[in-house]
Order: sequence, then structure tokens, then C-alpha cells
Amino acid sequence: MIRQELQGLIANKTKPQGSLGMLEELAMQIGTVLQSTRPELQQPHLVVFAADHGIATEGVSAYPQEVTRQMVLNFLSGGAAINVFCRQHSISLQVIDAGVNTDFEPGLPLGDSKIGKGTNSFLSGAAMTADQAALCLVKGEKVVAKIAAAGCNVIGFGEMGIGNTSSAAILMSVICGLPLADCIGRGTGLDDIQLIRKQEILEKAVKGYRGGKDVHSLMAYFGGFELLQITGGILAAAKRNMVVLVDGFIATSAYLCAIQIEPSIAANAIFCHESDEKGHRTLLKFLGAKPVLQLGLRLGEGTGCALAYPLLKSAVLFLNEMASFESAAVSTKSNE
Amino acid sequence: MIRQELQGLIANKTKPQGSLGMLEELAMQIGTVLQSTRPELQQPHLVVFAADHGIATEGVSAYPQEVTRQMVLNFLSGGAAINVFCRQHSISLQVIDAGVNTDFEPGLPLGDSKIGKGTNSFLSGAAMTADQAALCLVKGEKVVAKIAAAGCNVIGFGEMGIGNTSSAAILMSVICGLPLADCIGRGTGLDDIQLIRKQEILEKAVKGYRGGKDVHSLMAYFGGFELLQITGGILAAAKRNMVVLVDGFIATSAYLCAIQIEPSIAANAIFCHESDEKGHRTLLKFLGAKPVLQLGLRLGEGTGCALAYPLLKSAVLFLNEMASFESAAVSTKSNE
Repeated sequence: MIRQELQGLIANKTKPQGSLGMLEELAMQIGTVLQSTRPELQQPHLVVFAADHGIATEGVSAYPQEVTRQMVLNFLSGGAAINVFCRQHSISLQVIDAGVNTDFEPGLPLGDSKIGKGTNSFLSGAAMTADQAALCLVKGEKVVAKIAAAGCNVIGFGEMGIGNTSSAAILMSVICGLPLADCIGRGTGLDDIQLIRKQEILEKAVKGYRGGKDVHSLMAYFGGFELLQITGGILAAAKRNMVVLVDGFIATSAYLCAIQIEPSIAANAIFCHESDEKGHRTLLKFLGAKPVLQLGLRLGEGTGCALAYPLLKSAVLFLNEMASFESAAVSTKSNE
Repeated sequence: MIRQELQGLIANKTKPQGSLGMLEELAMQIGTVLQSTRPELQQPHLVVFAADHGIATEGVSAYPQEVTRQMVLNFLSGGAAINVFCRQHSISLQVIDAGVNTDFEPGLPLGDSKIGKGTNSFLSGAAMTADQAALCLVKGEKVVAKIAAAGCNVIGFGEMGIGNTSSAAILMSVICGLPLADCIGRGTGLDDIQLIRKQEILEKAVKGYRGGKDVHSLMAYFGGFELLQITGGILAAAKRNMVVLVDGFIATSAYLCAIQIEPSIAANAIFCHESDEKGHRTLLKFLGAKPVLQLGLRLGEGTGCALAYPLLKSAVLFLNEMASFESAAVSTKSNE
């Protein structure tokens, strides 16, 4: 019903049919998710979940593990890219400690969802216990529930966690049934030799896996605390009829886990950009997802969500503010 | 000099090298054009030039010619897509009558650059005289000079003119030396039969051309008043060291004419989007241009410029506001 109404409204705007391209699809999707022919994006939020990874100590990243903690402090003092872009678009930014390998001093404006001081290396066993994985989903939901209760209806998810492209690549490979080599990229900037080493380590990790093929077992073994809290957050946001902004490679792999648990969330998800990280394009294709931006970003933090946000707003604004052919007295096509 | 300084600044921001993708290139370009390591985009403007085309009466468009006038009135009352997007991003919008086939009532907030009441059909001779073509460049420059004098340093160009994809397609074909069929698209929405008719008409027009191969002769014969005023506007904006936003198919063909006259303007041009109009992708490729957005737009009016603008602003903001590795005490790569 709402889809037909939206279709009619969009078709009667003073422009050739379909000429606003993807903005028309976004207007349709946002209107449908928010069940309104005059949708409004309210109190946009971006949540950055941060955590450390045991696998990072095996030499899979170009940066040392302490960068996770340092970047969290950078987020809190407003100096990271995601701070800049959220300020630009009046998006509320929340930073969550999902499991950074440090004790932050008390009193920082940092959400506490800490599961532990980083995961174990999945080279020698599961990254976390089944209980911890389940707790990640609960804690991710809790963060979103609080934000939703305050009146937010559009939420993006970002991450920070040295080593987390390794988790994401393996989850992508095993869930999608794709060769691991197609899923592994340079992350924060590995050179050729380091990339080969990363591939060898991750192949060894996958070979060592003896668990079940169900998504919960895979998430516990190969996941990260931030990655799984995003999965929980996405599920919670969709359940609350929010517009869900999916960022880059890590966030999309968290989404991949989420749709295994609840396929209907696909209706709520907007894929904000196609990352330059190898694997992301393939993953988006696998999901049948069309990214809003293609800027060669590979930073994470939710930056793609923040940068795509004004385009979602444009979609809503043209729907709500443009004149119709009738109201503006503009002629329609010659043959109509 | 400034390029090296900018490169150093960008490299020291708290993010992996190159991880902001195209935003880094945009920051570099804008800083270089504005000759500043702390560039600011000031008083952004979008100018929509509107004019009619004799060729429109030959059946090359899905919409009747009167739509040009109707859409100008729609712009003036704020109901078109470009109004919505300019309002969203606080971009000043100016609408210019470059040669619409009507007498607008006096007192409207409409810039007067009228050359005539539409061009002649280039099926039976030149669209305009050489003097009129030269006057277009002068009038386009005059519009920009006034805007620049008021402190604007970033300007986008849009257009409205039923039939103007025909002008743009022929100019692209003859200047680039590409088959006309590769340059002709559906414009505002031709069906298959109408598209074949458009191709036949435009091929006949090109065959009838007896003039010189220089760009000024081609512009006068096949051009439009709005298209050539954009050419003049682009040249004028680049001369004044402004950032020049190039919109879709028509604006890019106006740019194509402009670089024939002054190749150095390429440094100032940002290609805001890749249009869904057939020919635009090929034209961008010919120009070696990388579009900011790929949203399947094909509306014109400068909508691509307005929609890309927040991303240019993001590029400037990350350059000016992000912390450096030193200032935020974040470790650099392990092997550096």
C-alpha cells in the first residue's frame, strides 16, 4: 500500500520519470521502512564499536594493536575522520568500548559494553566463548535500544579494531562459500609480502576450525567483540523499524551474520559505500546490494555512513518538498 | 610547493595512507586551486542557464518545448529538484534566462542574459550566428564575474532546455571524433522508436554541416544559448581561480568546448557525477575525468553539483579539522 502511494508521489514530481536515479530508490525504501509518505529522518546516530583482536598479534595488520586504544581516545577528543563528518551533518556520535585491550580511565564519554580485553587469537582456538558471542548480541541491542528510545529512526554502525579485517574476511569466506583469497585484502595497508603472510595465517586458522557450520558457532570462533555487537545492533535497529546504515567491509560482514539470523532485516539496510578493501565489492554483489557511494574509501569508523547521509536526506527532501506536475503547472511527456 | 605541503598534511592525518580515497584527491585539488593549505569553500553558487532549441520542434525530445519556460517558473517558485538540494546545502541558486522562447513578465528574480527566443533548428542551418555565440561567452562570463566579486570561490553550472541533449551529443561527437550513435541518449525519456528518430535527425544535421572544424564554428552551428553561456561561465570561473563544479551531460559538453579554448581550466574542474544519459560515461572517459557520484541521475539543472557538494566540503573539513598522528599520539605503521 505505502509502496504504491510512494510510487505515485515520486512519479508526479516535476522531473522526467526515474531521472533522480538511486535517490528515487532511497526515497521509496526510507518511506517504506518508516511507513510514511512524508518520512523524516530523526536524530541520526552513528555508533562506533571498538575492540581488540587476538589475531592482531600474529602479524596480520600494518598497525600495532595499541592503535585501537589510541584511536578511541582520538574519537573522544574529536580528531578522527568520523568526528569531522558527523559534526558536518549533525549526526550524534557514540563510541562504545566493546572490548579494547586496555582499562580506560573512568569518566570518559565512552559507552561500556566491554566483553573482555580483546578476543583470543583464532589461530589456536575460538576467539570467544559461545556465551560471550551471545552477550555481544545482547549488548549491541542494548546500545541501540537506548538510542531508539530517545527518538532516533536512522542509525549507522562503525568500528575500530586493529586486525578486524581478518575476522571479517573469514566470516565472509565461510558464510558465503567463497575462496578465502577473494575475501582477504590489505586492511590498513599491508604490502605484498605482508598480504601473503596474512593469507597463510588465515588459511591456517580456517583449516583448524572443527566447529559447526551454523552462524553462531562461526561468529564465536572467528568474530570480534565489536563486529558481533554491530550484528546485534543491526538486528535491534531493524526490529525497531529504523533505517540501518551499513558502512564498509567489517560492518557488511556483521550485516552478513545478521541476515543469517533474521533475513527480513534486508528491507531496512542501506549500503552506504563500496570500500576499496578487497572483498567488499564481492560481498556487496553476493548480497545483491547497491552501494550509495564509490569513493575508494577504506577507513571504517562508519565514515561511509556519515558521508552518504546527506544523500539519504536529499532523497527524503525531494519526496517531501518538490512540486508535482499539477502544482507547478508543468506539462508531462508529449505522448502521455 | 602547495601540492607538497598538502600532501604532507594529508599523509599525517590519523588514518591509513590513502584511506579516504577520492576525498584525498579532492582536498588536494581544492587546496591547489584555492592556493591554500587551509582552504575554505566560500559562498557556493549554482547557476542554472535556461534556453530553448530550434531542434526541439523536430521531434527529438519526449517533452514539449514549453516545458523550458514552465520549469524556469518552477525554479523561481522553489519547487524543482535543484531548489530542494540547494536549500539543503545552503547553496545560492541563480536562474538565468539565456534564451527561453517566451517573454517572462518583468520583476521575476530571473537573471537576464537573453540572446533570443531560442536557437534556430540546426537541421536547416546554423543554430545561431557567430556573433551570438561570441555574445554567449561574454554573457556567461558576466554572470560569473558578478558572483565572484561577491566573494564566491566555488560555482556549479546547471541547465534547462528541452532539446539540449541533441546539441550536446553532436558537439561531443564532432569534437571528440566519436560516432554519433555513441553520443545520443534518451534525454528526458525517449522510447526506442523516438530514439531512432532522434538519431536519424541528428545524423542528417551533421551531414548538412559545411562549416569549419574549429570549436567556435561548431559551437555556433550546433550549440545552445544556455550551453554556450555555461562554456563562457566555466572559462570565467577558472580564470578567477574558482573551483568549478561540472554537472551532467550538457554541462560536460559545455566544458568540452571550454577546454578547446583554454586547456588549463582542467585544473579547476570537479566532475560531480556520472549521468545515466548515454554518452556521458564515454565523454568523461574521453576527458580522463573521475566523477564524484554515480547515482544514475539524468535530470540536469545542476542537481549533480548540489548533491556532490557536501562531499567536497567533507574533503576540505578533514584537511582542516582532523588530528595528525603526532597531535593525537597515534602510532604509525609498524614498519615505518
